[in-house]
Amino acid sequence: MTILDAGKALRSRQISCLELTTRCLDHIAKLNPRLNAFITVTAETARGRAEELDRELARGRDRGPLHGIPIAHKDLIATKGVRTTSGSKLFETNVPDHDAQVVQRLNDSGVVMLGKTGLHELAYGITSDNPHFGTIRNPRNPAHIPGGSSGGSAVAVAADMALMATGTDTGGSIRIPASYCGVVGIKPTYGLVSVSGVQPLGFSLDHIGPLAATVSDARVSLDAMASGSKRQAAPASVREIRVGVPQNYYFTQVASDVREAVQAAAKRAEGLGARLIPVRVPDIDALNAASLVILLSEAAALYEPYLDRQSEIGIDVRALLYQGRLVPATDYVNAQRLRKVLAQEFRSLFRTIDCLLTPATPITAPRIGQREVEIDGETLDTRLLTTRFARGFNALGFPALSMPCGETPEGMPIGLQMVARPFEESLLFTLGEALEGG
Amino acid sequence: MTILDAGKALRSRQISCLELTTRCLDHIAKLNPRLNAFITVTAETARGRAEELDRELARGRDRGPLHGIPIAHKDLIATKGVRTTSGSKLFETNVPDHDAQVVQRLNDSGVVMLGKTGLHELAYGITSDNPHFGTIRNPRNPAHIPGGSSGGSAVAVAADMALMATGTDTGGSIRIPASYCGVVGIKPTYGLVSVSGVQPLGFSLDHIGPLAATVSDARVSLDAMASGSKRQAAPASVREIRVGVPQNYYFTQVASDVREAVQAAAKRAEGLGARLIPVRVPDIDALNAASLVILLSEAAALYEPYLDRQSEIGIDVRALLYQGRLVPATDYVNAQRLRKVLAQEFRSLFRTIDCLLTPATPITAPRIGQREVEIDGETLDTRLLTTRFARGFNALGFPALSMPCGETPEGMPIGLQMVARPFEESLLFTLGEALEGG
Repeated sequence: MTILDAGKALRSRQISCLELTTRCLDHIAKLNPRLNAFITVTAETARGRAEELDRELARGRDRGPLHGIPIAHKDLIATKGVRTTSGSKLFETNVPDHDAQVVQRLNDSGVVMLGKTGLHELAYGITSDNPHFGTIRNPRNPAHIPGGSSGGSAVAVAADMALMATGTDTGGSIRIPASYCGVVGIKPTYGLVSVSGVQPLGFSLDHIGPLAATVSDARVSLDAMASGSKRQAAPASVREIRVGVPQNYYFTQVASDVREAVQAAAKRAEGLGARLIPVRVPDIDALNAASLVILLSEAAALYEPYLDRQSEIGIDVRALLYQGRLVPATDYVNAQRLRKVLAQEFRSLFRTIDCLLTPATPITAPRIGQREVEIDGETLDTRLLTTRFARGFNALGFPALSMPCGETPEGMPIGLQMVARPFEESLLFTLGEALEGG
Repeated sequence: MTILDAGKALRSRQISCLELTTRCLDHIAKLNPRLNAFITVTAETARGRAEELDRELARGRDRGPLHGIPIAHKDLIATKGVRTTSGSKLFETNVPDHDAQVVQRLNDSGVVMLGKTGLHELAYGITSDNPHFGTIRNPRNPAHIPGGSSGGSAVAVAADMALMATGTDTGGSIRIPASYCGVVGIKPTYGLVSVSGVQPLGFSLDHIGPLAATVSDARVSLDAMASGSKRQAAPASVREIRVGVPQNYYFTQVASDVREAVQAAAKRAEGLGARLIPVRVPDIDALNAASLVILLSEAAALYEPYLDRQSEIGIDVRALLYQGRLVPATDYVNAQRLRKVLAQEFRSLFRTIDCLLTPATPITAPRIGQREVEIDGETLDTRLLTTRFARGFNALGFPALSMPCGETPEGMPIGLQMVARPFEESLLFTLGEALEGG
């Protein structure tokens, strides 16, 4: 059930907030032992809150599209009185005395919080294979990873445990699990959703956004989460939209299923009236390298004080933190300078297009533990591939949406990424909704 | 002669642009062999340009307050066809094919360029004791340094070789030589004057501004140089201005002459109607430390590719570049984070005051080669002292003006620093002009 359908059913009294919440809790009870999407389930509080929202509706108070909608928060977003672990042993007993700003905003818009979703430790990785809280599994095939770091949030939505879940994205952590689990996820413009009360990872790269079942659900969720007011209005129709189709970079080192599905999506967009424009993109490998240097440095600066408790940190995250400590400041400064140059080049590119269309990930979800994949006869590293198309847009701060656009013969979802100019999320939603409908 | 007086004389035909220019060139010819303010003098071009501006005035074209005013540019500001060395052997044969944006702006406003002024090598130091182009000397006493890095510009103005000279300020490089030479210098708000065409040093700390004989001259000069339009209007009078007088930091480790002169200036401001407000300032030592880490890193990132020519770089600058290469990225990141925290604290402070009044430098100009000075029985490092009050405002980006406020019994000038909120340069000029007149 989508947020929009649930809203209609609630308002026509076909279902109550409590029933909707109970249905999600039942799914969680049934599926979570296997999929491990949730670290904490706040069932009692959720039922109480749903009853309260039912009473509000009954007496005519309607908070809007999220009224009574059961959602979950990634477990690095502070929730008052509810343990917030960041997926880490370092914070396993952390119970915040305040809500993050995004939690407050969603509460004000009437959501019911079901609990807190699991993640890659400290949000610093893309498998969601968590050494402290267990492996999170892909609902389409539990032998596969859900992607990360917001793996639990993607799984919760994909397996109907929640109608929406919040995520964070520092190098693809919303878009990657959305792509691997077959849901919609948007990394909005840098700064659009307040990071106040959210555990940072890379302060110049961190973004917060929703994961949801449909583009329309992502739209109403982001509307409630966003604190900025700079957003552009949506275009009147898809006909106005100039869609850039990359002729370089995004269709090399890509699984053939993914390439074909994304090219088919471009054709569908054209069929809907969008204008396809072949473009050459700037040097994304350089942008990725700069983003990685920046992330390694910023994360190490943040967690350096914790390295005397290194045995409590998982081996992969620990390695990244040690790596970050070895970066010289000159490399960080040069990475920031390169980032500015590339941002300028992307702004130029976006004078000729309104939207860039790429695969969200070059491959579909690998198996748990799978380190290599073969594409066109070449053996490639699954982890490097996973972030290859996503990471650059964290450095640029441009909004980027991932949505399903097909699946492999084995039934693994394929993700389409669409990128727009800063504060033009509405354009992505308009195009995404059209593709979803088409 | 000031810019304002020269302007009146030009318009009443008491003097011509050519006569004004020739007078400056005569001073240069006479004094430069001893003081070494100029690296390049463009006498012929200057005379030709002055004649052209005389013809313009004669036929009724008046470009405004800088029409026909002879000025000089610090020799790291690109001037088309005129060698621009940055005070370095690395660039000794560099002849730009374009003017820096600030040069264009000043040319458009009618100045006559006399030549290029000497500086501390690469603007990376505060003595202006340059190993490649010679020691620049203080006009008040040639055994003393003029301060730096914009030493040549301050000397040119102080010794009547130019009516104004441009400078750059990354850690005090305009305000320090202004203070040591007894002229006015302003580091405007970060970004107000375009850095395009100016050799960078620390890209997040670099500022460009004028050095001039009076506050009014600095005002008209900055008006012509600034490309931003965000500036606030000047307050109607000094009566509206709340002047913060620091109760901590700025009156410790200060020579008694300097302390007394600055306290007397505060009293004069009060006599003019300003409201003195005792304030405690945030942790400037922390801000200075953060600024220095940022500068070391940014400068090293910039000049790292030149370190294979290390023998061509002076020993002090080379040491700073090697030091910068040893800074870990985590320290740079933490310095940037600390900078943000302190900027927030300073913004809070500036909700209770409009202007902060401090000494520009804790001491007057040291002798050439003097490394130590004794204050209140304590032996202190002259170079650390020199930047102690100036450096922090580069990290904050707040505008800061240095103006003379007395002299020692030996005749060495004492500098007063006034700091305002971003884009409130006009307030500094209003208060400065009142103090100058009072």
